[in-house]
Amino acid sequence: MTEPTIAWDRESGTIRFIDQTLLPGRFQVVTCDSVEGLARAIRRLEVRGAPALGVAGGMGVALAARLSPATTREALLREVEQAAADLAGARPTAVNLSWGVNRVLARVREAPDPAGARRAAIAEAILMADEDLATCLAIGDHGAGLIPDGATVLTHCNAGALACTGWGTALGVVRSAVRDGKRVKVIACETRPLFQGARLTAWELSRDGIDVTVIPDGAAASLMRRRRVDLAIVGADRITRDAVFNKIGTYMHAVCARHHGIPFYVAAPLSTFDPVSGEKTVTVEERGREEVSRCGERILVPDGARVENPGFDATPLSLVSAIVTEKGVLRPPYPFAGHG
Amino acid sequence: MTEPTIAWDRESGTIRFIDQTLLPGRFQVVTCDSVEGLARAIRRLEVRGAPALGVAGGMGVALAARLSPATTREALLREVEQAAADLAGARPTAVNLSWGVNRVLARVREAPDPAGARRAAIAEAILMADEDLATCLAIGDHGAGLIPDGATVLTHCNAGALACTGWGTALGVVRSAVRDGKRVKVIACETRPLFQGARLTAWELSRDGIDVTVIPDGAAASLMRRRRVDLAIVGADRITRDAVFNKIGTYMHAVCARHHGIPFYVAAPLSTFDPVSGEKTVTVEERGREEVSRCGERILVPDGARVENPGFDATPLSLVSAIVTEKGVLRPPYPFAGHG
Repeated sequence: MTEPTIAWDRESGTIRFIDQTLLPGRFQVVTCDSVEGLARAIRRLEVRGAPALGVAGGMGVALAARLSPATTREALLREVEQAAADLAGARPTAVNLSWGVNRVLARVREAPDPAGARRAAIAEAILMADEDLATCLAIGDHGAGLIPDGATVLTHCNAGALACTGWGTALGVVRSAVRDGKRVKVIACETRPLFQGARLTAWELSRDGIDVTVIPDGAAASLMRRRRVDLAIVGADRITRDAVFNKIGTYMHAVCARHHGIPFYVAAPLSTFDPVSGEKTVTVEERGREEVSRCGERILVPDGARVENPGFDATPLSLVSAIVTEKGVLRPPYPFAGHG
Repeated sequence: MTEPTIAWDRESGTIRFIDQTLLPGRFQVVTCDSVEGLARAIRRLEVRGAPALGVAGGMGVALAARLSPATTREALLREVEQAAADLAGARPTAVNLSWGVNRVLARVREAPDPAGARRAAIAEAILMADEDLATCLAIGDHGAGLIPDGATVLTHCNAGALACTGWGTALGVVRSAVRDGKRVKVIACETRPLFQGARLTAWELSRDGIDVTVIPDGAAASLMRRRRVDLAIVGADRITRDAVFNKIGTYMHAVCARHHGIPFYVAAPLSTFDPVSGEKTVTVEERGREEVSRCGERILVPDGARVENPGFDATPLSLVSAIVTEKGVLRPPYPFAGHG
């Protein structure tokens, strides 16, 4: 991928990102020049993926600082703090979003005056994007050793370049293995209800010439049973002291991988870790009925039936074979795990 | 449900069935007056569900006999046998289809003359439909005891009235429990790629006033972990001496149910049993790419990615807590199970 998933445009002082709701049918880079517009884009999943949300949150705070007409430090801070709260609340489960928001907000708070705050916020946001790419490359390098030559790797949702500034976390590990000369095939679970596996993972891998096959989510366990899967690797939206929160469906793959003796790996930057929290205190976003009940104009669920559409599930750490971070591969017993 | 899923129209000598591809948006009963049209409807899943396919296969053979202009026994048999082969080949995995075809074909073979063969074939096809409804009611009665009052029941795909002449197998068990005064809630997995759970199970249960909630397939394991599911029950397309073949995704639910200590039941008529065969000899239908890669006009998978779309998976009998048949509830060790 040549175009970064999200970037700060220095000339115009705006945010540019790939609108992921349009893929794979249309590749379109959107320019965003308001905090409200960014929050809406985050809610609509035009920008998604935990690391990319961290960068988006940071850039949103920088944008708020840049756009503010405030002439005093206090007035600027008031405005930026409101924007920060709006952005962090756009999606509750991924911890990276509020991590990114808070990181740039801290620069604004430290600055002696509005002009300094604006400069510092923008510099920090750009730094975060650069760091995110470097982090993904480091995750890829640390994780590549987990993938044997000739392996078939199952993944869920999109933990790829499109979920980060570039390269990816779970797919970064795949990319690093391929760059090292290994032959790797990927099985991408389509990932209902929004099809990020079919639309995004298949798009970015096939664009890079990596062999990718899309399956319905429910077919993964059957492929594991037929020894068609050597390992599974996914990203994460939040890693608490007891569980990995990731796209709904992840837990099912982890249970089935354990049943078949297949390694189940998670790849995520340290900004995804939230060891202060336990599973029970995390809010799992319940998304709209229409994501499940309709596909385009087509009605899939009759009005008389309810729908549940949780965005994420929690996989207990006991089912996770290893966690790949930018600092190295963590293995059980996990050093951050609680003993409660 | 008042309208039978499939029925022989005595006046016109044709087959009437509910076109299930149009549900839940439109309820339409189709009249079919050619074997070719019936085979196409079976391939397109306008008629689907293992027991209904058995009835459809039998009615298709009866239709072939009725339509044939043959004046000799031999000429009629040649024509009807060709039609039988075409119908049985329309879908390879469900054993009921060829069972139904062969049952009516046997009546044609026994008959002394073409007129007698036509009469016998039609009578047998109508008998099969009547028997199918009685069988489902018996399955429901035998299985109702497995469902505690207040239970939440997870199901996959549609093993309901729409999969049979009426009442249903897995959903027949639910209906019988509700008729007995039990409070039952159903969680219907949407069942990708063709959404039979969302479109059909939700439609027929909500129409009957039974509480039903649709979830993405990948959310089932997470609900099991949160103790939101008391038991799972599904239908079957073929039960060999070692495995239950059913809609893709069934195996994943069985693995996850076992992991959580939740009973996993199968409900099916004896016509679904094929104990002569073992799992390895059964052909699993690979269905078209476009079922996964498109939803209406929307492209979900880019051209550069492969798709795998197996229609069914195999669940080993070791994961099945009990099998509900019209003759009673079978429990492990299953009397028909092989020891190979």
